[in-house]
Amino acid sequence: MKIGDTYHRSITLTDSQRGIRIIDQRALPWELKFVELHSANDTATAIHEMWVRGAPLIGAVGAYGLAMALAQDPSDENLARTHQQLFETRPTAINLKWALDSVYSAVKDLPAEQRPQAAWERAAEISDEDVELCRKIGEHGLEVIKAIHRKHPDRPVQIMTHCNTGWLATVDIGTALGVIYTAHDAGIPVHVWVSETRPRNQGSALTAWELSQHGVAHTVIADNAAGLLMQRGDADICIVGADRVTRNGDVCNKVGTYLKALAAKAHGIPFYVALPYTTIDRSLQSGAEIPIEERSAEELTHFTGPGDQGSLTRVRMTHSGALNPAFDITPAALVTGYITEKGILPQIG
Amino acid sequence: MKIGDTYHRSITLTDSQRGIRIIDQRALPWELKFVELHSANDTATAIHEMWVRGAPLIGAVGAYGLAMALAQDPSDENLARTHQQLFETRPTAINLKWALDSVYSAVKDLPAEQRPQAAWERAAEISDEDVELCRKIGEHGLEVIKAIHRKHPDRPVQIMTHCNTGWLATVDIGTALGVIYTAHDAGIPVHVWVSETRPRNQGSALTAWELSQHGVAHTVIADNAAGLLMQRGDADICIVGADRVTRNGDVCNKVGTYLKALAAKAHGIPFYVALPYTTIDRSLQSGAEIPIEERSAEELTHFTGPGDQGSLTRVRMTHSGALNPAFDITPAALVTGYITEKGILPQIG
Repeated sequence: MKIGDTYHRSITLTDSQRGIRIIDQRALPWELKFVELHSANDTATAIHEMWVRGAPLIGAVGAYGLAMALAQDPSDENLARTHQQLFETRPTAINLKWALDSVYSAVKDLPAEQRPQAAWERAAEISDEDVELCRKIGEHGLEVIKAIHRKHPDRPVQIMTHCNTGWLATVDIGTALGVIYTAHDAGIPVHVWVSETRPRNQGSALTAWELSQHGVAHTVIADNAAGLLMQRGDADICIVGADRVTRNGDVCNKVGTYLKALAAKAHGIPFYVALPYTTIDRSLQSGAEIPIEERSAEELTHFTGPGDQGSLTRVRMTHSGALNPAFDITPAALVTGYITEKGILPQIG
Repeated sequence: MKIGDTYHRSITLTDSQRGIRIIDQRALPWELKFVELHSANDTATAIHEMWVRGAPLIGAVGAYGLAMALAQDPSDENLARTHQQLFETRPTAINLKWALDSVYSAVKDLPAEQRPQAAWERAAEISDEDVELCRKIGEHGLEVIKAIHRKHPDRPVQIMTHCNTGWLATVDIGTALGVIYTAHDAGIPVHVWVSETRPRNQGSALTAWELSQHGVAHTVIADNAAGLLMQRGDADICIVGADRVTRNGDVCNKVGTYLKALAAKAHGIPFYVALPYTTIDRSLQSGAEIPIEERSAEELTHFTGPGDQGSLTRVRMTHSGALNPAFDITPAALVTGYITEKGILPQIG
């Protein structure tokens, strides 16, 4: 995707080709800050502290982290220890586990001296595969957007989304936002309702920034306003991403997704989940089995943004204690379809 | 209600007895700032700029504003003009119109020289009546809380609310929060889930502050987390207030209420609306007829709170444009009951 006129991926290699360069997303939209990660520890911090976030992206970054660990010490012990260390950085998204397992499998039967190179190559493949997956998700989702546009050719297709599922959440273009970019690039007029996505504001900070860089019309709303807009008929479709989808089709995604799904159902608005197949966790029967990450209350009680003088300032939002679960579960019954790289599935089978 | 050890009402008279003293709620919870209003213009500003908010409170403040205008100029022209001026400060809540109409009716047939005194007395009555209404709402609502407590005597009753409906929204104790205070004061253990209530954070700023002053256990959550908590069985009941209720029982309340009502319905959690009868607008058949106030995008794009040095600082939250509707409509079918001063109604009849 482009930032201004320059093409970017959310992961690139460092000059040494032995580390990766990522965007510290905590600084967006105020500053575009690139950071180099040179070790598994760097990577674990970047994932846990949410310098990078988004299920597909943390999978790819985690894979590189495991490869960097093996470059230092290719032993079985370090392989197992680092796999565990990185896995524990974010417990909810399944892509991270999938990516770590994938690197693990690629190297575990190799002699130690071959492991660093093989791990690095597998991490690079995971990144490239993610780009291709998102491209295909975008192509399949395009058909859904086209169908709505055919029904209402005189006005933009009104799309509601949640959190950030764009190129900042993946390696390129994104999942739910990837569908929107694909439609926009195909010349279909779209307008996106960007819900703020409290408490970390991935919507108003990241999604709004991405969309503005790419020239896609959008309006930020309070998460609370999603119901009213659907009530009024101001949304034609909801498209969200997923951090984990269970065998029965339940969708674990950023907290607040479920409320949008309930409102969409109440008003007959199609509710789609865009995801790569790697997001499906067939080891779990239903969403009730997914561990829901609880994050620091500080994400709710404080906010950091530029003051009127421009410098980043942290302000307090409340005196009280807060509970901060990061995800919720949208039952399969509320999902119209799953937009995957293999096509649109009415259910997970 | 008490702030620390001192009893307060949200409206008191100035020393001259010709103006009113209110709390500038924009400064809460950081500073307890009293402001005197000496004219209808002061009053209009205080309502429009949300120094005071909450349907019952703006009704009472508006009534005093009209009385202050008549003290300056008791003519028919000024009566009509000020009535209109104050009515237009907040278009959604019906209590304001009711209170202004009530003062208007009390004075319109009087000779000009008697109007100031009669208007002032009617405004004072409206304030006192509001206190009594809230007391009765609390008593009726107490029975609902008691019934839940009898079912689960070993743990606190878990109550979810939205926005601020406490003594800061009324003249004393409040509507939905009034029920909670009444239950707490009756010795029933309660815990309140306080949803942040973006974009103005009346939950995390005002409700959390009120509850902490009164010693009621509570936890702030992102508005987005309400669905997850209900999904998990962490809420026994939702109680909210209302800005206007139509003849069919549709409830217009702070934006985000509807999403909570949908989630409560999905999980069989009772959803109550606490309101004085004056909130019912029998001139409207359904919620679709209620004008939804749109407020400044700046409420979403900026936030003001104390910086790490303690001084109030305004920070930007997003670069993008925002849409900021302040209310939504909860259909009557989602409401378990209406807790009024006359008892609990299963429907508006």
